[in-house]
Amino acid sequence: MKSANLEKLSPAIEQFMKDRDWDQFHSIKNLVMALSVECAELVELFQWTPEEESNQLQSDPKKLDRVRDEVADITIYLIRILQKTGINLEKAVADKMRQNAEKYPIAQAKGSSKKYDEHE
Amino acid sequence: MKSANLEKLSPAIEQFMKDRDWDQFHSIKNLVMALSVECAELVELFQWTPEEESNQLQSDPKKLDRVRDEVADITIYLIRILQKTGINLEKAVADKMRQNAEKYPIAQAKGSSKKYDEHE
Amino acid sequence: MKSANLEKLSPAIEQFMKDRDWDQFHSIKNLVMALSVECAELVELFQWTPEEESNQLQSDPKKLDRVRDEVADITIYLIRILQKTGINLEKAVADKMRQNAEKYPIAQAKGSSKKYDEHE
Amino acid sequence: MKSANLEKLSPAIEQFMKDRDWDQFHSIKNLVMALSVECAELVELFQWTPEEESNQLQSDPKKLDRVRDEVADITIYLIRILQKTGINLEKAVADKMRQNAEKYPIAQAKGSSKKYDEHE
Repeated sequence: MKSANLEKLSPAIEQFMKDRDWDQFHSIKNLVMALSVECAELVELFQWTPEEESNQLQSDPKKLDRVRDEVADITIYLIRILQKTGINLEKAVADKMRQNAEKYPIAQAKGSSKKYDEHE
Repeated sequence: MKSANLEKLSPAIEQFMKDRDWDQFHSIKNLVMALSVECAELVELFQWTPEEESNQLQSDPKKLDRVRDEVADITIYLIRILQKTGINLEKAVADKMRQNAEKYPIAQAKGSSKKYDEHE
Repeated sequence: MKSANLEKLSPAIEQFMKDRDWDQFHSIKNLVMALSVECAELVELFQWTPEEESNQLQSDPKKLDRVRDEVADITIYLIRILQKTGINLEKAVADKMRQNAEKYPIAQAKGSSKKYDEHE
Repeated sequence: MKSANLEKLSPAIEQFMKDRDWDQFHSIKNLVMALSVECAELVELFQWTPEEESNQLQSDPKKLDRVRDEVADITIYLIRILQKTGINLEKAVADKMRQNAEKYPIAQAKGSSKKYDEHE
């Protein structure tokens, strides 16, 4: 994976919001709404795209650029949520992956897209 | 912001998916759907919460834990999308922030939640 | 509630799609994606709006028009999903309301926004 | 399309909410959030489903039941939004279809999933 250290991005985003006095709009409730809207803008790019074609972004640089833009927007709001909640993201993800490993043991989950509570 | 380097998290997630042979389900189309579903699970935690209360997660550790869980799920799918698209996230966000600075000049945007195309 | 009989709207929508040969894009998977995207466009209109202000659409006719547009888009995809799945919507909602009445007995649920599984 | 007259469903839903004193939580802002969450629960049912398989719900009655449930939830919140906004849904959809017919003339749109602003 290419460079993706959110900590490096955090100060510039905080400053941007401060400069515009936007903190007043950034309640957690509003930020999660905004995050979900940005996700939907990413979904929109693929709603009529066949699955296989969705994997060939390299051959459609214009679309890849739009995906890049939406992924950036999502990340900006994710960072805002981290700033506001004080969540330690590395620890949160590591904890979740441990839970996932228990819910989806390899022997049972291998090659299956079933949800853990659908396994017999 | 606390530790949030996605690059550190990436290899364990890749291995987890490989162990379960889940790559076959992870087309970009499906991953963006899954990402949006996880975002909605975060929204669900705040749909009936007054804005002010949403900012007081520190006094509701049980809810903060659920927020942490959903933020982790969102991040896991975001990382999957980065792995599949090869997007350089730091560069993508820096580019987007530059665009945002142009769309929302301080003088005009200060204290306003209007979308850039709604400014007169 | 004002006139809202989806059956009346259904034939014109079916014809519109047929005229454009869009049936090929309208798998259930794609239609639920499109529906969620339209919902997010409705959410976007309220992401920075205080709760109380969101209830005063009558005094903001321009915004009410945009809400109307998004609600229409949502309904169009909902109708497409009904056309494709053959679901009897009146029966489905009546059944769901019966389930909800069991999950949320008045004595317990009155004045509480807790999810049914959070009640002690 | 099977019976889908939302007006018939409206009074029972209004009464249900009144009995539980839930009107206080149902600002438009909160209702659009709840609607988007229900849409995502519908998306979740199809996130790993191949497109073709998503069209064969008739051969998976258990899944069809879950789809039915989610479609009902979406409709309940849609009805709440109609009750609160006073939107005339039949007129709103008819107006939108007229706009769509202009944005997507048959000659240009036939067989194409491009967004209207992507046509050359």
